[in-house]
Amino acid sequence: MGGDHAPAETVAGAIMAAHDGVSVLLVGDRARLTSMLPADVSLPILHAPDVVGMDEAPVHAIRRLPNSSMNVAMRAVASGRCGGMVSFGNSGAVMAAAVFALGRLPGVERPGILAPLPRADGGRLFVVDCGANVDSKPRHLAQFARLGAAYVSARGGAPRVALLANGDEDGKGDARVRAAAPLMVALGGRYVGLMEPHVALAGGCDVVVCDGFVGNILLKTAEGVAAMVAGMLEGAVAESVRARTDYARLGGGMLIGVDGMVTVGHGRSRADAVAMTLRMAWEDVKRDMLGSFRTAMVG
Amino acid sequence: MGGDHAPAETVAGAIMAAHDGVSVLLVGDRARLTSMLPADVSLPILHAPDVVGMDEAPVHAIRRLPNSSMNVAMRAVASGRCGGMVSFGNSGAVMAAAVFALGRLPGVERPGILAPLPRADGGRLFVVDCGANVDSKPRHLAQFARLGAAYVSARGGAPRVALLANGDEDGKGDARVRAAAPLMVALGGRYVGLMEPHVALAGGCDVVVCDGFVGNILLKTAEGVAAMVAGMLEGAVAESVRARTDYARLGGGMLIGVDGMVTVGHGRSRADAVAMTLRMAWEDVKRDMLGSFRTAMVG
Repeated sequence: MGGDHAPAETVAGAIMAAHDGVSVLLVGDRARLTSMLPADVSLPILHAPDVVGMDEAPVHAIRRLPNSSMNVAMRAVASGRCGGMVSFGNSGAVMAAAVFALGRLPGVERPGILAPLPRADGGRLFVVDCGANVDSKPRHLAQFARLGAAYVSARGGAPRVALLANGDEDGKGDARVRAAAPLMVALGGRYVGLMEPHVALAGGCDVVVCDGFVGNILLKTAEGVAAMVAGMLEGAVAESVRARTDYARLGGGMLIGVDGMVTVGHGRSRADAVAMTLRMAWEDVKRDMLGSFRTAMVG
Repeated sequence: MGGDHAPAETVAGAIMAAHDGVSVLLVGDRARLTSMLPADVSLPILHAPDVVGMDEAPVHAIRRLPNSSMNVAMRAVASGRCGGMVSFGNSGAVMAAAVFALGRLPGVERPGILAPLPRADGGRLFVVDCGANVDSKPRHLAQFARLGAAYVSARGGAPRVALLANGDEDGKGDARVRAAAPLMVALGGRYVGLMEPHVALAGGCDVVVCDGFVGNILLKTAEGVAAMVAGMLEGAVAESVRARTDYARLGGGMLIGVDGMVTVGHGRSRADAVAMTLRMAWEDVKRDMLGSFRTAMVG
């Protein structure tokens, strides 16, 4: 029910994903959702009478509306009815609802958001934390690093994990990064050191770890510059660049460190981005990503 | 003498700038510099026998090489012989040499680097601090804001100054930004609040203030994404995008808060970027930018 183009685009995307084999349960106002389903399409609906607004104060909204679509969907995950939940709504409220309903994984003090960016070499750069926390402690960065490494490993890759910094020499970084660097030895050969964002974006690593304030600045700077450059171009070339740098179509962010699979899609997602986000969440549920996270934190 | 393509490209750029009316003094090894000047070109040279390497530890290098081109140029500013100095060399060493030779302006605890980025609306976004400091205190951000506002004012604009943040609502920002926000009232109507990077890049403000670690991440993310998108394109379109997003050609960064005009050009600057950087420094010297900075800090 949440998102800039909800529920119409969300439902349309869910239909696309279901067509591709994703097992989808819609959560929200039954009458409104039913009215958006074409006559020949049937998707199960879990009724939730309330909706958290995009601008509501997260914790307040979650407490005030226990039967909001967000809380009802989160409880469907907590009870085991669903393998994961995807929301395009108020991301702060998603985080609050997730921690409240699912709790944290053992060994995780603060859940973070992991989000993909396109890399110049055609790969993906996973940034964690993209904004779930500010004022992280060094040990929180170390926890993000373990979760990020587990994420790439579970997807079949050999993760190269870096600490985001203003240079790669010893002594670079701010106080937080300098204190986090020694904690990265637990990653063994998967830790590749401090790395600047342009090096990471060129393909220098798979996971870049940072405080959520910094990661949010990185993400929104990347979006802003990609949009600006696309704006300099015309016609088909502009469309091609927009498609290849559309962060919404990369699958949204994942809330990592909670005891359940929760995906935070872009609020501005249209149907195709919704479908892509659902497909990615579905793949992660099928490969038991949560089990990988749990193992990474106790290991 | 410093920079990835020095001294050949630096001298070539200096000749271009001199041709445009900039009064240039070359500082460095007289024999090498003389050999790079065409027979029909004459530029004054101030001899300096030593060179600070690009990878040398800044403070150590500055102390070890009192007669490096960097130190000699800085003393030429301190003595009043030159209105300003421009370096394409080791930026950390430039900062150390500047503070050592010129000192700080009254009211400035930590000099910062102010650097321009292209905005989607055709204007420039000036980011301060771009990396001179990490672990800034909130009052340092307030000082950067006053200097940044003075910079845009002296160039004839009505500055809109924002604090870089992960959202624009009350309560956004990390602890540093939240503590800095109340200090911004000294700017009066020039302060426009917290602002996200994509909003600033779209034209939402003229000066965005942040800690140097964060500003450096912003700058290098912008460069990385612009390079990546240009890499997706071909031929003339790619060249056009590269030209319009070439951060070296925007004139480099200015070290603000020291008692002298010091410009930190991009190390990878070619002749045209060197010439542009020299022209911008020259314009700022002619408009007595340093006097504007001094007034802003005592006012």
